[in-house]
Amino acid sequence: MDLNADLGEGFGRWSLTDDEALLSVVTSANVACGFHAGDPSVMRRVCDLAAERGVRIGAQVSYQDLAGFGRRAMDVPPDELAAEVAYQIGALRVFAQAAGAEVTYVKPHGALYNRTVHDDAQAHAVVAGVQLAGGALPVLGLPGSKLLAAAEEAGLDPVREAFADRAYTPQGTLVSRREPGAVVEDADAVVRRAVGFAVDGGVDAIDGTRVTVAARSLCVHGDTPGAARIAARVRAALAEAGVTVGAFT
Amino acid sequence: MDLNADLGEGFGRWSLTDDEALLSVVTSANVACGFHAGDPSVMRRVCDLAAERGVRIGAQVSYQDLAGFGRRAMDVPPDELAAEVAYQIGALRVFAQAAGAEVTYVKPHGALYNRTVHDDAQAHAVVAGVQLAGGALPVLGLPGSKLLAAAEEAGLDPVREAFADRAYTPQGTLVSRREPGAVVEDADAVVRRAVGFAVDGGVDAIDGTRVTVAARSLCVHGDTPGAARIAARVRAALAEAGVTVGAFT
Amino acid sequence: MDLNADLGEGFGRWSLTDDEALLSVVTSANVACGFHAGDPSVMRRVCDLAAERGVRIGAQVSYQDLAGFGRRAMDVPPDELAAEVAYQIGALRVFAQAAGAEVTYVKPHGALYNRTVHDDAQAHAVVAGVQLAGGALPVLGLPGSKLLAAAEEAGLDPVREAFADRAYTPQGTLVSRREPGAVVEDADAVVRRAVGFAVDGGVDAIDGTRVTVAARSLCVHGDTPGAARIAARVRAALAEAGVTVGAFT
Amino acid sequence: MDLNADLGEGFGRWSLTDDEALLSVVTSANVACGFHAGDPSVMRRVCDLAAERGVRIGAQVSYQDLAGFGRRAMDVPPDELAAEVAYQIGALRVFAQAAGAEVTYVKPHGALYNRTVHDDAQAHAVVAGVQLAGGALPVLGLPGSKLLAAAEEAGLDPVREAFADRAYTPQGTLVSRREPGAVVEDADAVVRRAVGFAVDGGVDAIDGTRVTVAARSLCVHGDTPGAARIAARVRAALAEAGVTVGAFT
Repeated sequence: MDLNADLGEGFGRWSLTDDEALLSVVTSANVACGFHAGDPSVMRRVCDLAAERGVRIGAQVSYQDLAGFGRRAMDVPPDELAAEVAYQIGALRVFAQAAGAEVTYVKPHGALYNRTVHDDAQAHAVVAGVQLAGGALPVLGLPGSKLLAAAEEAGLDPVREAFADRAYTPQGTLVSRREPGAVVEDADAVVRRAVGFAVDGGVDAIDGTRVTVAARSLCVHGDTPGAARIAARVRAALAEAGVTVGAFT
Repeated sequence: MDLNADLGEGFGRWSLTDDEALLSVVTSANVACGFHAGDPSVMRRVCDLAAERGVRIGAQVSYQDLAGFGRRAMDVPPDELAAEVAYQIGALRVFAQAAGAEVTYVKPHGALYNRTVHDDAQAHAVVAGVQLAGGALPVLGLPGSKLLAAAEEAGLDPVREAFADRAYTPQGTLVSRREPGAVVEDADAVVRRAVGFAVDGGVDAIDGTRVTVAARSLCVHGDTPGAARIAARVRAALAEAGVTVGAFT
Repeated sequence: MDLNADLGEGFGRWSLTDDEALLSVVTSANVACGFHAGDPSVMRRVCDLAAERGVRIGAQVSYQDLAGFGRRAMDVPPDELAAEVAYQIGALRVFAQAAGAEVTYVKPHGALYNRTVHDDAQAHAVVAGVQLAGGALPVLGLPGSKLLAAAEEAGLDPVREAFADRAYTPQGTLVSRREPGAVVEDADAVVRRAVGFAVDGGVDAIDGTRVTVAARSLCVHGDTPGAARIAARVRAALAEAGVTVGAFT
Repeated sequence: MDLNADLGEGFGRWSLTDDEALLSVVTSANVACGFHAGDPSVMRRVCDLAAERGVRIGAQVSYQDLAGFGRRAMDVPPDELAAEVAYQIGALRVFAQAAGAEVTYVKPHGALYNRTVHDDAQAHAVVAGVQLAGGALPVLGLPGSKLLAAAEEAGLDPVREAFADRAYTPQGTLVSRREPGAVVEDADAVVRRAVGFAVDGGVDAIDGTRVTVAARSLCVHGDTPGAARIAARVRAALAEAGVTVGAFT
């Protein structure tokens, strides 16, 4: 099982994620590429650290919206979106390669992630951007999303991920953040659910029924206080349960 | 004696200064206007809080450089710089007035502050921007700076400030941050020096000689851990020493 | 009848609209405020020219999207959108007032204009931003739009505008640009239709039926080659038809 | 002799250079990378056109200053500047490679070009950025500049260029644009001087003396009306004079 987290989400004077601590835990780093966070200096530093520790580097591509941290969906025409995605991958690749590593996958951020669950045109545009960037990079996303369908259709490896700190519907989709109980706050529950995804391939849905979620990667959040500590507990619990933790590629 | 601090230096998802705590201490809030920090939502919130607490609102104008947090000097032609300064003041004024207050002064930020100490053309451009914005706003700056000279020449009130946590040369200028001992780290010393500026109108220079610094405002930093606590100690010590703390206007 | 046009839509080294020529023709200038176009220097120059010629200055507010020229709709939360609108109005007001004039109305640009035709939440957010900026400014928009309804509800003057170069449905809405015949290319037809709006209060819809469009302002486009010439012809034809051309306020 | 020109200097809705016409004339295209101009869609299109016509693609790297079109020098710390340069090269490389080509050289733009003539720290930072980006790319610049010295020192090919439309001092440097006669406006003179650089390896300085300028590339400007036509005349005149026009790499 792979563990992925969003990293390098600072910008200039600001920082958000505890990159050093998280890079000791995760196996895949979703590195911000400058469109929602991540200036060139931050990108360079995170790539250097990730490469040093053998953590895989992924391009966390976003809408161009620094003020909104990429959380505001945008009606970007497909051609523009594809070019924007490719631009971000290329910029990150320089720092990955300078560190002796490679960009090995792509994961959309925030509103682009959410939108490409349902929006087929934007999902195809993101995939077109990945193809434009070359290297046939795998795409990390939500099981059942238009994004993963478009990736598969294009011959790219669609990598399904699960969220240990999010509630699931009986259909296996995420409960909207606007609903009560959408986020699992209790650290023990988060750890237990993470192990459940890895060992049983599923989780208890919000209505108590059991739902199957076939995930190759677990997303641990990095932008909350104590995030790195919970991530470390998840990793330890997985090891204890006999789950091999390693990058999906 | 006035106490001023930089506030609202967040942007989108990021924050930096503990605005709420500092607004309980200072009498003048230098509010970022979007060019180095401070998106419209942050500006609105800070103005609302400042107005509620009777803290004066100043426009903390900057070079347009979000990635560099306004710390990278730019060769902006005077006409452009004046227009950029006026733009920022106008944008902030909307939120000050919506909160029932006013923008009552202007203070340049970061590299613009440092550059206008010596650069006469940019100092005049900043003052031209203040005049363009109307209201004959006072300008807060370093004693002896080109900026305050240009403000005075233009009939604007030049408000001299002192820094309790910075070392001074025997000539009364700040010791460059590149020199050892430039920043006073010890909280007790910061508090003691603040009282000294207010009571004695001076401070011990880095060579031990006494130097006169006639300041109407003390700048307390807000962007370091514990900043609000030190600021509160400075205010308490001033009160104890019989210094009336209040806005300079 | 008022004539309005988008102006000041340059940025830095780039320009788009022939501001000087259009300011000799129109009575209301929708001035870009820096979010989709219009840097501070451009805004200042356009305000100076407009004030000199007695042309009214309106704030052409937009989503924050320079790369997309404000043509990509964004899911901006209402509070953020209101603050962004107010910020833009405030910034422009400085230059209008420095020129001895005032910002006298607000008109959304591009995707924000189109979205607030139907999106009630964003329409209310724009109106909230106008109110935040103070001065109870009139709002210029499409007859029947959510935007004008929200403005009216808030006690702001809703100013209906018509487009002489756009085809209308029998219901009085604009034919989508994606449909054939949506844009009237023939200059003679544009001039004839402009006069029709002013004299008869209506226009022939795309199916040949007559449709009533009660407009107080005509929008002439400024961003196409020959735009200023067509605008001048419209103005001359209105005068010839006995229509008094003047600002709506 | 190589002919280079700045291309792709549009952004979003704006354009500046007649990319298509210039790409029929030059042998090296300095493509803007998004920091002073050039959004991802523009970069993609220019790379596609350049590759189609066999024109070499260079990264025209700049300070991050869209509002100032990269013409305002910035005090960017060397580490940040190196990362910014590498970021731009990486982003452009994606589009060059997608078009079946490569980024084959780097040329700083505007204020960064001018500053690295004399500023050794920034010159080294640009070179460090080029090295960070990999591929040991040649650097195009002014003969005698700190930039070319730093490139040579780092083992990168320093490519000297000459300007047919700029006056030269007797020392072989450019006459400052602030001096009278700095720019050669007459098209015939521009063509004649271009041939002179290629055939005689020199030009008449502003004081009438002869000065040697050993250039491997001639820069033709693309951002003035008629630029493409003058460039075409230069190319024709070089051919007529028996000079082989071709990329320097």
